[in-house]
Amino acid sequence: MDLADLQDAIERTYGERDRARGVPSTVAWLAEEVGELAQAVRKGNHAEQVHEFGDVVAWVATLANQQGVDLSEAVQRYMEGCPRCERLPCGCP
Amino acid sequence: MDLADLQDAIERTYGERDRARGVPSTVAWLAEEVGELAQAVRKGNHAEQVHEFGDVVAWVATLANQQGVDLSEAVQRYMEGCPRCERLPCGCP
Repeated sequence: MDLADLQDAIERTYGERDRARGVPSTVAWLAEEVGELAQAVRKGNHAEQVHEFGDVVAWVATLANQQGVDLSEAVQRYMEGCPRCERLPCGCP
Repeated sequence: MDLADLQDAIERTYGERDRARGVPSTVAWLAEEVGELAQAVRKGNHAEQVHEFGDVVAWVATLANQQGVDLSEAVQRYMEGCPRCERLPCGCP
């Protein structure tokens, strides 16, 4: 799954409504979904976890769209080892 | 950016350490990063926001790796309109 394709699908599905509701509401929704993911990881089954991971990534994509952030650019620094210690695998203390 | 490639890079960089530290620690780290993203969205500049979005997606990928979840599969249900109301754009009340 390409992150740009996901951001585009999320924009077409939710962009207008999300912008009307405003950024603080999206941050609140994202926080709620992260809480649901934490619960699913603690006591949910695999299907429930897949569901909640999808919701969290979708809300991150919504917020990124609202802020004009390209998620592909954002994660690029993680593609060649740890961006902090610059080692692969990470050797941070 | 392909989500599977990101999960693979994160696995090679952090997989062994993350598994040793355990899932609750990863959930705590993710929560911390979501807080930093919320702050960057409220008062950070574009570069700071890009940085924090990258961190959040990376920690979601770490947690997904630990749980054996394929993020590409997880977001698939968002690719054809709203998975709840099945409309494009979303028409949920």
